[in-house]
Amino acid sequence: MVGVIGVNYRIFKALAKNGISVFLVSQASSENSTSIGVRNADADLACEVLNEEFAKEIEMGEISPIQAEKNLATVAIVGENMKHTPGIAGKLFGTLGRNGINVIACAQGASETNISFVVDSKSLRKSLNVIHDSFFLSEYQVLNLFICGIGTVGGSLIEQIHSQRQKLMQENGLQLNVVGIADANKAMFSREGFDLGRFREELQEKGKDSSLETLRNEIIGMNIFNSVFVDCTASAGVASLYKDLLLHNVSVVAANKIAASSEYENYRELKQIARQRGVKYLFETNVGAGLPIINTINDLIHSGDKILKIEAVLSGTLNYIFNKISADIPFSKTIKMAQEERYSEPDPRIDLSGKDVIRKLVILAREAGYCLEQSDVEKNLFVPDDFFEGSLDDFWKKVPSLDADFEARRKVLEAENKHWRFVAKLENGKASVGLQEVGANHPFYGLEGSNNIILLTTARYKEYPMMIQGYGAGAGVTAAGGFADIMSIANV
Amino acid sequence: MVGVIGVNYRIFKALAKNGISVFLVSQASSENSTSIGVRNADADLACEVLNEEFAKEIEMGEISPIQAEKNLATVAIVGENMKHTPGIAGKLFGTLGRNGINVIACAQGASETNISFVVDSKSLRKSLNVIHDSFFLSEYQVLNLFICGIGTVGGSLIEQIHSQRQKLMQENGLQLNVVGIADANKAMFSREGFDLGRFREELQEKGKDSSLETLRNEIIGMNIFNSVFVDCTASAGVASLYKDLLLHNVSVVAANKIAASSEYENYRELKQIARQRGVKYLFETNVGAGLPIINTINDLIHSGDKILKIEAVLSGTLNYIFNKISADIPFSKTIKMAQEERYSEPDPRIDLSGKDVIRKLVILAREAGYCLEQSDVEKNLFVPDDFFEGSLDDFWKKVPSLDADFEARRKVLEAENKHWRFVAKLENGKASVGLQEVGANHPFYGLEGSNNIILLTTARYKEYPMMIQGYGAGAGVTAAGGFADIMSIANV
Repeated sequence: MVGVIGVNYRIFKALAKNGISVFLVSQASSENSTSIGVRNADADLACEVLNEEFAKEIEMGEISPIQAEKNLATVAIVGENMKHTPGIAGKLFGTLGRNGINVIACAQGASETNISFVVDSKSLRKSLNVIHDSFFLSEYQVLNLFICGIGTVGGSLIEQIHSQRQKLMQENGLQLNVVGIADANKAMFSREGFDLGRFREELQEKGKDSSLETLRNEIIGMNIFNSVFVDCTASAGVASLYKDLLLHNVSVVAANKIAASSEYENYRELKQIARQRGVKYLFETNVGAGLPIINTINDLIHSGDKILKIEAVLSGTLNYIFNKISADIPFSKTIKMAQEERYSEPDPRIDLSGKDVIRKLVILAREAGYCLEQSDVEKNLFVPDDFFEGSLDDFWKKVPSLDADFEARRKVLEAENKHWRFVAKLENGKASVGLQEVGANHPFYGLEGSNNIILLTTARYKEYPMMIQGYGAGAGVTAAGGFADIMSIANV
Repeated sequence: MVGVIGVNYRIFKALAKNGISVFLVSQASSENSTSIGVRNADADLACEVLNEEFAKEIEMGEISPIQAEKNLATVAIVGENMKHTPGIAGKLFGTLGRNGINVIACAQGASETNISFVVDSKSLRKSLNVIHDSFFLSEYQVLNLFICGIGTVGGSLIEQIHSQRQKLMQENGLQLNVVGIADANKAMFSREGFDLGRFREELQEKGKDSSLETLRNEIIGMNIFNSVFVDCTASAGVASLYKDLLLHNVSVVAANKIAASSEYENYRELKQIARQRGVKYLFETNVGAGLPIINTINDLIHSGDKILKIEAVLSGTLNYIFNKISADIPFSKTIKMAQEERYSEPDPRIDLSGKDVIRKLVILAREAGYCLEQSDVEKNLFVPDDFFEGSLDDFWKKVPSLDADFEARRKVLEAENKHWRFVAKLENGKASVGLQEVGANHPFYGLEGSNNIILLTTARYKEYPMMIQGYGAGAGVTAAGGFADIMSIANV
């Protein structure tokens, strides 16, 4: 058909004679085909009359038989300022694409204040929301957040979003909508977003019973644009949802360490899917809560620096314990105190076994470019292995038996003016965790409370490592770290 | 014309009868207008025959007179995998928009492997490059970098880009092209990007004489997509180009502190233009070189934290001087050493006057949300004001007169086991810089060499501030900080 004059004439003649109204025409410059939008009711007739009109050409193989595609929706966007405003089509189609919506056909004319596109009718609602968001009709970029887990961290995050929403809209043109909230039992969803003033009560009142499967299906089924799943749980089940969510163009922000510290292959796959889908999988808070550690390592690596050594105190709980231990407070008591002050996990053996620190170290090592599994980390623990068997009650009964030995070692340490720190180390690709005695000149010596500290020795930060220190746990700072991940998805 | 059957029929009949070939048709669903692409040579005839065909309707005011828009180019993209691949139109139009290219008309049909769009012919070349980049034809995202200043920092940055290019392409799908390199006298540009192996020689050989104006015109004139201007100079002239570049959709990464520390109104305007244009204005290296300081403050602020206090040692030069001063090395000698070791500016008075630290503090304060000018910073200097008048030679002659007094104070300090630190402080919105005596328990006490340190006390990091420490100067780490800014523009 290329260069053949009169084909369009014949198309529209046939349609006009049969009283078929055409509401969209799109013929791209290859001149190989013309697409026409007609009402569903007219579709069969349109095919029939066109097949008749071009019967000869179809028989000769010059033109393919005319086909109707159904279950489509046409969206038209109209606005005075569209013409000669660069970027409107870009904003529109960019957001459609990022949200996995396939544009089947589109038409925008030169003298127009109108752009039309055709999508599968199942994508109509999402498309309308996308347009409202990204088009000139809305001055804000929107992120739609699903927040899973409303314990201290998740609750804090929701409060931070609640208090920052107005400011982010005004100053950054970013609108954060919380469109889903879930705890271990209940979940609630709203396309319009929740008023966050009393989300706990609302979840109790309006939330429906929820399981991992309903959570997954609901989020994917909502098919909402620019969506981010924020995991503030410590649940392996919730972590198992990431892959499916990423595959459906939902970004994932995880305070939950389980996925990033799971088998290397799983970690790699999640990162790869995110990259392929143009969405993000971020977990800055997995190490050092709100401290800028993982991003900093990423930045160093990208610019070609090499992480030669990582030395870090990454357990707020263990740092608290070894800061509290004294002639008056025996080892077993410090563990109890850490539990009571909520520094430790409900089962403090998760901290004492080093498991939490090992996970963090594995994540850091991987981000630093090393292919490491948890089992590769050498463990030098300070509680005998058999204390971790049996029930928590058994543990509490047995642990005071360690006090005398700890006190003896502590006295020696005190005399030498040294402190205990539970140190995670990566050097030459070899990872280890263990108790270390540090003197007054060591950067870890003065580490107070439940603080974390990390020293990064790199090809460039060699004589003096880069050092980052601060709270390594706590609801507010951890939530803020998750907030930073969310902002980096918005990239405003 | 809405719902009127037969208009298209008449359009194409008139065109066909007059032998006019139509290569693009776009009628969006408002049914208000139809756009038709014809050859330039046919344009006038097309208008004539259509005006004739619809003369009656035009007279009645039902149809506007037919108009031709000229100097346009039609771009067609063809590919087997386009159909039903979400995001292709998005990627395409997204990049076009981000690069300031206005799509005048577009057409994509349902059965097609083809999408066509019309642009101003002046934008044709840029459009083709954009397509090559963002479309499925290229698997890489491209950033086109103009690097201004190839001293230690700029040179290092180019070397880092050179060594990282391959890896970023493979692992991050990002292609960094250096399309322009300039020093104070010469500049060279290449749309294809330079081989970075011997950029210094090449600039000498191929570079053309350059001025601020030619630099600006060349960059804007190249009209290249996804472009980033990287300022590794300390020039006020170069900083004065940012506004124009941002207005032309060129992102700016500045190691140069001048713009961000200039009048608040100028700083605010640059940030605002960047936001409006959807490009970035970043300057992480302005404070603490490659240390993650400005981004961290941004992240805290976004999540609703409040910066209550900033205490920092931000001058590597001054820290070096106060670490070197001793019974054997008088004050004046340490300044000379700092100059010789290239820690200080060629004119060390820029460091000694606190100007460099004041600029950094102003930038931090602004990022922390305070509206501060350099003149608002209280200065408690350690060199009398009149030392800064006159020539550099005068200064070198006069400065030994301070040695005796410094030595007397130093002895007292030594006896008290204290160190001098030149501290920048922001508290309750009030900023000051000055020499401070810190004892062994102070986090600044042990700050070695030319390191920087920053303590951020916030609403959340309150009992223990967040602390970031490491090299605050040096070509490699500063370049790496600029690299991190570039990566954040790519947002891969």
